[in-house]
Amino acid sequence: MELWYTENQTENIKFSARVKETVYSKKSDFQQIDIIDTYELGRVLVIDGWTMITEKDEFIYHEMIVHVPMSVNKDIKNVLVIGAGDGGTVRELTRYSTIEKIDMVEIDEVVVRASQEFLPFTACKLDDPRVNLYFQDGLEFVKGKVNEYDLIIVDSTDPIGPGEGLFTKEFYTDCYNALTEKGILVNQGESPYYSNNAREMQRSFSKIREIFPISEAYQYNMPTYASGHWMFGFASKVLHPTKDFNATYWNSLNLETKYYNTDLHLGAFALPNYVKKLLDK
Amino acid sequence: MELWYTENQTENIKFSARVKETVYSKKSDFQQIDIIDTYELGRVLVIDGWTMITEKDEFIYHEMIVHVPMSVNKDIKNVLVIGAGDGGTVRELTRYSTIEKIDMVEIDEVVVRASQEFLPFTACKLDDPRVNLYFQDGLEFVKGKVNEYDLIIVDSTDPIGPGEGLFTKEFYTDCYNALTEKGILVNQGESPYYSNNAREMQRSFSKIREIFPISEAYQYNMPTYASGHWMFGFASKVLHPTKDFNATYWNSLNLETKYYNTDLHLGAFALPNYVKKLLDK
Repeated sequence: MELWYTENQTENIKFSARVKETVYSKKSDFQQIDIIDTYELGRVLVIDGWTMITEKDEFIYHEMIVHVPMSVNKDIKNVLVIGAGDGGTVRELTRYSTIEKIDMVEIDEVVVRASQEFLPFTACKLDDPRVNLYFQDGLEFVKGKVNEYDLIIVDSTDPIGPGEGLFTKEFYTDCYNALTEKGILVNQGESPYYSNNAREMQRSFSKIREIFPISEAYQYNMPTYASGHWMFGFASKVLHPTKDFNATYWNSLNLETKYYNTDLHLGAFALPNYVKKLLDK
Repeated sequence: MELWYTENQTENIKFSARVKETVYSKKSDFQQIDIIDTYELGRVLVIDGWTMITEKDEFIYHEMIVHVPMSVNKDIKNVLVIGAGDGGTVRELTRYSTIEKIDMVEIDEVVVRASQEFLPFTACKLDDPRVNLYFQDGLEFVKGKVNEYDLIIVDSTDPIGPGEGLFTKEFYTDCYNALTEKGILVNQGESPYYSNNAREMQRSFSKIREIFPISEAYQYNMPTYASGHWMFGFASKVLHPTKDFNATYWNSLNLETKYYNTDLHLGAFALPNYVKKLLDK
């Protein structure tokens, strides 16, 4: 018998991976959580039928969401991570000895516990002493906070289900207020290619642009996400992601990375014309 | 009834698109050629079960294979295109009034005639007076030619079936000889992500590097090819793809493009670490 996992990337596009076995399956209060082991991609975390991360390419996502902002401001000490239940974003953050505190707010504790048990390659640093885990709604957590974080990373699912509120103007305004003067907001910014993703990309970027003086988009190649061409948003009050970027500083840290490097940092902000056009709207 | 086209991207990964109808299907002397119409990707050319181009994203491939070399040497007059039966590469080349002659060598006339009838969006410029069509083996065509072409584009399928010889050292050496002093070779360089493609990428680049003093790789996001992360090779005797690149010149041409731009040109050569490592081997 052959087992295949299929993600319906659009109504008319499917992506399938052959499965060795289902490792974990549970319905939490918020969502259906499955972890499967596949022949090509290793272990895969699937939430409500959508691929969250795979063992084979999670390094791309997590390096790009963390090292881009970390190379723009070397004084980042306090970080807030929203979502990111698999732990991969925290894993990359803990590599910086300069970071003093990481608050991670994930609405669904079940995702975190399952990741700790079955996805140790991402969840391995959640017990770092600088990490504080909060199992609550990120929207509520950030509300009312002022001048507390040097970096906020919104490592969210798509804007459906529990992640929906993380794509609203109100939430982005709360993030703005929670950031320090040199603070940076990085958010999962969807994808330009299929129209369902492109619409959400446009909505997210247009809202952030209304609030933050500096708002740019950068791209990364994520083979297991629909189309493989995905975006992060970089927003801040004063720091520009390429003009204030400090390659010499970052390279002096001697961090070993599999995807990110300082040339690629600059290249990631050079977007194709069709993407620029979508974002200008 | 639902019809789906499925490409087996690896033994353990499938990509599927919902089909409206089969537009064309023929077995030529060389290969099985199908053209289907799909809901998400428009018309798709499929050869021996592999996706060649889709109406939705062919612009990415064709702009990147043509405009990168054309912006490095403004004196390109004589061009040889090998493969490229769908006509998209020639379509982009004909936009340059500076080009005087385009020899296109495609082994399978059936692909070209089918494209002219059913894929007018790519095949629309094959009747340009500067274009000479040769239906013969590209390997034989280029053999013995000396100092004839300013640009050779190897727009080949994967190194299986009729495209196999286009990935050999002997062929690359013939291309070297056929190029003028400032000549450039651009070739379809496969993909770094899935091991089957990565192996071919490594083989192709290592062979070219032995022959050409300058040999670099650049990337593009091609959603309908396996993993979405694909490479072209840029090789030449004297011109470097980023140091000799002339953004001012290219921008002065006022060519409208949907993917390519001069910032992205530089960004495309900034490769992820894992790709650089594969290419260094």
